[in-house]
Amino acid sequence: MKYIRFQTDNGVQTGAYTDPAHVQAVTGSIADGFTPGDDAGSLDALHLLAPLEPGKIVAIGLNYVDHVTELDKSRKLPEFPVMFMKPPSGVIGPDDEIRIANPANDTHYEAEICVVIGKTASDVDEASALDYVFGYTCGNDVSDRVVQYAGGQWIQGKGYDTYCPLGPCIETDLDVSNVRVRSRLNGENRQDESTSSLIFSIPFLISYVSKVMTLLPGDVIMTGTPAGVGPMKAGDTIEIDVEGIGVLRNRVVNR
Amino acid sequence: MKYIRFQTDNGVQTGAYTDPAHVQAVTGSIADGFTPGDDAGSLDALHLLAPLEPGKIVAIGLNYVDHVTELDKSRKLPEFPVMFMKPPSGVIGPDDEIRIANPANDTHYEAEICVVIGKTASDVDEASALDYVFGYTCGNDVSDRVVQYAGGQWIQGKGYDTYCPLGPCIETDLDVSNVRVRSRLNGENRQDESTSSLIFSIPFLISYVSKVMTLLPGDVIMTGTPAGVGPMKAGDTIEIDVEGIGVLRNRVVNR
Repeated sequence: MKYIRFQTDNGVQTGAYTDPAHVQAVTGSIADGFTPGDDAGSLDALHLLAPLEPGKIVAIGLNYVDHVTELDKSRKLPEFPVMFMKPPSGVIGPDDEIRIANPANDTHYEAEICVVIGKTASDVDEASALDYVFGYTCGNDVSDRVVQYAGGQWIQGKGYDTYCPLGPCIETDLDVSNVRVRSRLNGENRQDESTSSLIFSIPFLISYVSKVMTLLPGDVIMTGTPAGVGPMKAGDTIEIDVEGIGVLRNRVVNR
Repeated sequence: MKYIRFQTDNGVQTGAYTDPAHVQAVTGSIADGFTPGDDAGSLDALHLLAPLEPGKIVAIGLNYVDHVTELDKSRKLPEFPVMFMKPPSGVIGPDDEIRIANPANDTHYEAEICVVIGKTASDVDEASALDYVFGYTCGNDVSDRVVQYAGGQWIQGKGYDTYCPLGPCIETDLDVSNVRVRSRLNGENRQDESTSSLIFSIPFLISYVSKVMTLLPGDVIMTGTPAGVGPMKAGDTIEIDVEGIGVLRNRVVNR
C-alpha cells in the first residue's frame, strides 16, 4: 500500500492506494493505524505534500563504498555508521521547490531511501528491526558543501529550509534488500546503485540507531547516498527515484 | 512567570507560578498561549517533568572562550556559531535519572541556558530576536566524549536517551544579557560563568539559526557551555543552576 498526504480546501488529508486511479482518503496516524474513508479520486488530480511530518530525522553519512571517497580521496570506509540529523523544518513534498540559500556555494542533491518508523523502537536487534518499520519513502539530503564542511558539524549545511524533500509516498510493502536508488538531474542519470551495496544494511541501521536513541512512530532514518552526487542550480529539476516507491521531483530556485 | 509540566493521576498538566507555594494549573500551549485553571498546590508536592516537549533542539558548541580550548588546546575561536542538534527523545526532566550508555567512556555534564521559542521565527534580525522567545530553561548537554569525537559528527555521543535534561521550569521574565550559568557535581562548583561572556549572544544566535531554519514554538536553542566540564559517573548528582531560572538536578546511574 502507498500512503500520501495531500492538500484540500478543507485542510490536509492522508490517502492510501494500490491503484493510482483510485486513492482512498484515510483517517488515523502512523502510530495508531489508518481507517478507510471516502474515495479521493485519482492521484494525478491531488496536490501532494510530504507524505509525513517526521518527529526526528536521523541521517547516515558515507554508507555506499563509492560515495565515501568521491568528494575526499583521503576518506576511509567507516567502521560504524556516521550519524547526523536534519531538522523537520527542512521537509518539503513533491512539487515543492528547493530554495538554494547560498547560490555562490555548491549545493548538492543526494538520493536516499528513507525508513519511516512505525512502532517505538528502543534497543532492538537486527533480526527484528524490520518489525518496527511502517514503510519507506524517497529523500533528497540537499547539502551546501561549503557550509557543511566549514564548521565540522554537518547540520547547518544540510539544515536549511527546503533541504529535505521527502515523498512522493510511503510504500509499506517493499523488500529493501535490493532496490535501486537513483537520481536524475534535468532528466540525466546521476546516481544509480542498489541497496544491496549499502555498507550498513537497513536492518542494521535501525538496530544501531535504536541502541542510541528511542525511535518513535513517524521518525525517519535517511540511509545514505550512492556515488554520483553533484551540484544543482536555480532552474534545474532534480528527481529521486527509488525502485518500488516512486519519483520525488523538485524544481530548484534561489531563495 | 515560571511554567512547569507535572504528572498527575489524570495525565500530564502544565502549571504556572510566581510564588512556588501557589502553582496554578493552566491549559493551552506555547504557540497559542495559556489560560489559568485550578489551583495545583505547592511546587514541592508536584512530580515535575521536563517543562516542554521540544520540537527540535538546536545546540551551539564552543560559545564561551575558556571552554573552546579546555579539551583541545589547538582549537581556535569559532568565526560563526557551530551548530548541531540533539534528538527530542533524549529529553528528561528534573528528578529523572541520567542513564550512562557507555560507563567505560568519559561522559561529561555541560551546563547551558536554553532558549524556548514562542513564535515562528524565520530570517529574523538580531534587534527583534527576543520578540520570538517564550522563555528560558536550564539544560545539560550530556556528552559521551569518546563517541562524540569518534565519527566527527557529535550527534551520537550527545544523542543517547536521557542525555538532554531540561528544567526545572521555563522562566518567561528574564534579562539574559548577564546571568550566571553554573554546574555543581555532588555539591561542588564546577562551572560558573556569565552569559555576558558568550562569544555569540542569545539574540545573535536566534537570528543566526532563524536564517538557516525556521524556528517553531516549542523549539529549543541550547546556547553552549562554560569552561569546567568534566565526567560524571553512576551515583553522582549533577546540578545545572542558571540564575533567575532555578536548579535542574539529576542523579546519574548506568543504563
